[in-house]
Amino acid sequence: MGMGYVHGYSAKESTRLTDQATTLTELLHADTLYLPGSLVLEVGCGVGAQTVILAGNSPRAAFTAIDISEASLAEAQRQTQEAGFTNVTFQHADVFDLPFVSAHFDHVFVCFVLEHLPNPAGALEALMRVLKPGGSITVIEGDHGSAYFHPDSVHARRAIQCLVDLQQQAGGDSLVGRRLYPLLVQAGYRDVHVSPRMVYADASRPALVDGFTRKTFTAMVEGIGEQAVGQGLMDEEGWAAGIKDLYRAAEDDGTFCYTFFKAVGLR
Amino acid sequence: MGMGYVHGYSAKESTRLTDQATTLTELLHADTLYLPGSLVLEVGCGVGAQTVILAGNSPRAAFTAIDISEASLAEAQRQTQEAGFTNVTFQHADVFDLPFVSAHFDHVFVCFVLEHLPNPAGALEALMRVLKPGGSITVIEGDHGSAYFHPDSVHARRAIQCLVDLQQQAGGDSLVGRRLYPLLVQAGYRDVHVSPRMVYADASRPALVDGFTRKTFTAMVEGIGEQAVGQGLMDEEGWAAGIKDLYRAAEDDGTFCYTFFKAVGLR
Repeated sequence: MGMGYVHGYSAKESTRLTDQATTLTELLHADTLYLPGSLVLEVGCGVGAQTVILAGNSPRAAFTAIDISEASLAEAQRQTQEAGFTNVTFQHADVFDLPFVSAHFDHVFVCFVLEHLPNPAGALEALMRVLKPGGSITVIEGDHGSAYFHPDSVHARRAIQCLVDLQQQAGGDSLVGRRLYPLLVQAGYRDVHVSPRMVYADASRPALVDGFTRKTFTAMVEGIGEQAVGQGLMDEEGWAAGIKDLYRAAEDDGTFCYTFFKAVGLR
Repeated sequence: MGMGYVHGYSAKESTRLTDQATTLTELLHADTLYLPGSLVLEVGCGVGAQTVILAGNSPRAAFTAIDISEASLAEAQRQTQEAGFTNVTFQHADVFDLPFVSAHFDHVFVCFVLEHLPNPAGALEALMRVLKPGGSITVIEGDHGSAYFHPDSVHARRAIQCLVDLQQQAGGDSLVGRRLYPLLVQAGYRDVHVSPRMVYADASRPALVDGFTRKTFTAMVEGIGEQAVGQGLMDEEGWAAGIKDLYRAAEDDGTFCYTFFKAVGLR
């Protein structure tokens, strides 16, 4: 199997990614601010969920957003224009064949991208080439092995494992969050600092329960149901029970935990 | 099997608990401060690892520390005296048969206790009786299902599962951290707020790698090896591989994650 994007490119998926970004903006992005005049490369901008946040938080930095999908780039450009930002240039490019001169950018930003790459270490090395000495790289990734919930459920855990397995089949690693530190250090970045950003949702935080437990995480797992059942990773009944149990964790006596990892390093 | 304390009462275990408390003091206890003159009940003080922190952080509050083990109480008293604190009274008592009049305490503090109880909800209800209206309860618990690490290892995960299983056999629940919110709400506490306290250790934080990954968590798992292998939960080779892999996560390219949960509620 090739390097398909495990979540697909549907309109529903695009909405999910935008919901996800809104809920998590503060947690993940509040401490990423670029100085006026900085040249910043956003790698794998996708449909622009993070692009509009970056552009809004650092309105006087100049962003170049690249992606391997022309369709995603077009959508990202549309969303960024709609949001009124003029400080982003979109460019079709492959992270392993970057069309930029060496040491061009002050900063590189990579969010929810390494998890999909068969060679994340190689990507980090390629990115170092286009980064100025002293420039920074910021990497944000999830880790599906960090998900746990109450009530616990074997079916729900198996459903999450299907997502991990499918992402691995597609050449990715959805447990990449926990290994950002060694990945960046081994790629040659210095002063690497990783800070986990844990999402914890219980009934006292209804917006997070709805925005994250239901509409981000469970929706993401639910979205791979056809593939998981179609490939025989789980049977239909078990899958349905797993999804039901994930929604169960969003009820008033349930809780849900997930952790993102944010790493910053210097060239 | 009865309600044996899964970690045992050895001198080595006592040292481990003290090491653990020192490393985690800031993370878990910095925001627990009691006003001068407050009457505070510490439930299940054990060998006094938390008692000396509480007494030191709130030197003018008056603590009553109870435990079901006379031997632990004696050790806690020794440690507290050695640390020079005079604001703690030690008393032998069972949380399910509290020798105090109703509404006696301003605050109740429970740390690493519910995980060992077959009926944590009942304990929380019993504690509410001795709490003044408007008084607070603070509960801190771990959750062994929150542990994950790089490199990932099936053996290490199975070794951790042995600890979960043995604690369950002993009537406890080492996954209790994630369900503090519903436990406190169902026991009748109001304004319940839970904050996860995640420990993340990589080579940039050597004190945490040593103090937590090696000397707290892995030492704790290692401590139940005889029981786990003796009961046939794992064979000797698998167990040794699991422990080796946990120590592996403490090497320079490894990472380790664990989350404690701190809940506060009001009567």
